[in-house]
Amino acid sequence: MKTLTIVKIGGKIVDDAEMLNQALDSFSKIDSPKILVHGGGKRASAMCLKLGIAPEMKDGRRVTNVETLEVATMVYAGLINKTLVSQLQKYDCNAFGCSGADGNLIIAQKRPVKEVDFGFAGDIKTINHTLFTQLLALGITPVFCAITHDGQGQLLNTNADTIAAHIASVMTVHFDVVLKYCFEKMGVLSNPKDDSSSIPTLSHTDYMHLRQQGTISAGMIPKLDNAFSAKQAHVQNVWICGIQGITQAAETHQTGTEICL
Amino acid sequence: MKTLTIVKIGGKIVDDAEMLNQALDSFSKIDSPKILVHGGGKRASAMCLKLGIAPEMKDGRRVTNVETLEVATMVYAGLINKTLVSQLQKYDCNAFGCSGADGNLIIAQKRPVKEVDFGFAGDIKTINHTLFTQLLALGITPVFCAITHDGQGQLLNTNADTIAAHIASVMTVHFDVVLKYCFEKMGVLSNPKDDSSSIPTLSHTDYMHLRQQGTISAGMIPKLDNAFSAKQAHVQNVWICGIQGITQAAETHQTGTEICL
Repeated sequence: MKTLTIVKIGGKIVDDAEMLNQALDSFSKIDSPKILVHGGGKRASAMCLKLGIAPEMKDGRRVTNVETLEVATMVYAGLINKTLVSQLQKYDCNAFGCSGADGNLIIAQKRPVKEVDFGFAGDIKTINHTLFTQLLALGITPVFCAITHDGQGQLLNTNADTIAAHIASVMTVHFDVVLKYCFEKMGVLSNPKDDSSSIPTLSHTDYMHLRQQGTISAGMIPKLDNAFSAKQAHVQNVWICGIQGITQAAETHQTGTEICL
Repeated sequence: MKTLTIVKIGGKIVDDAEMLNQALDSFSKIDSPKILVHGGGKRASAMCLKLGIAPEMKDGRRVTNVETLEVATMVYAGLINKTLVSQLQKYDCNAFGCSGADGNLIIAQKRPVKEVDFGFAGDIKTINHTLFTQLLALGITPVFCAITHDGQGQLLNTNADTIAAHIASVMTVHFDVVLKYCFEKMGVLSNPKDDSSSIPTLSHTDYMHLRQQGTISAGMIPKLDNAFSAKQAHVQNVWICGIQGITQAAETHQTGTEICL
């Protein structure tokens, strides 16, 4: 099977013009069919602040209300997505921006209300892998933002790491999939204070151990949970890496952390 | 040749939830391949106001500076475009939102500075009719917002009426094209105070005459100039119509104004 490379770039890269430019330049050089998934960075929060929309929190977790969903849609699907697409076009990568609503690419359901009502947060139900494959066959590079829909006219906010993991999993039907979570560090660090302490390979047992120790914490946990989910769902290669890792072949093992079962 | 229907919906329809819903419901029922082009309405101006961005005017014309381009990209390509796409999906129309940057669909050039520097306003250079045709062949309905790019990483603001006329013109290579400019009136009015005075057919000579008389003025002039340009560029049927005219076959002549040479 052909290789498909899916790269997710995190918020800190999106927020930093120089890092973003490097990441897009590298991404555009990937030879195989590819998909980019991007987070939102701090711009949605900054826009909420400018517009006087206070963040709504429940049990320490952010709630997507009508107003913050509007801002997320503007910032993720509008400003950031189209900026990334036009930059990639400059690098001769035929990027095409999309949300889950476009071509019905991702249908999600509003997260059921249990202890907490997370508002317009969407959990992924189905991914239209046929259309993804058709778009790739046209030489198009989908650039995906963290907005999905429920198929009934409601847009939903969905975590970009989760979107990348789900797309990677379903695309294994058609491709050998390489999934790279690219962020501002070189990989998963064995010492959070030492940027050069990137772990070459991380098994689920080691991950659980490092979590218990507190070496892996905060923002890395959902990313790694998604990475292990993807690996469990038969994605061939899953990496946590820095910008330098974007163009490296999966075999080279030079930078970044490879996720193993 | 197959028929392609291109509908442009104006700002006042986009701003009114009920009119918009009717327009999208009707649009989704068009049987032939179709493309929707939408204006921005007052939401970009309202957003600028909220963000404290003062409109910049030169010689009575609006200038797109960096800040207003960002707002236009957020509101047109983000909020409005994705709202329309998700609503159309509800009506089983496989909508896919796009700007000119997506798939390099429309390359424009920053308007050359003559007497006035219009900032990031883009004049259309090329339209990727091959990709439009490929997307239509996949059963996709492109939903186009008024943002283009220059191919060098710069997004540009381009008039939605002009985008509709240009797409219609180039698509005549592949289709019999019906272009409908849909707005809040039934058609071009012979008496601006009488909403039932819609003119059934309008020739260029009559148009020039009505312009001189002052019967046609203000916002209708650029729309009609674009409509006549499209007709001159061999678009088979060009209409100015209300929401009722969206699903009517071009032959029925019941509502709306047909543009003739």
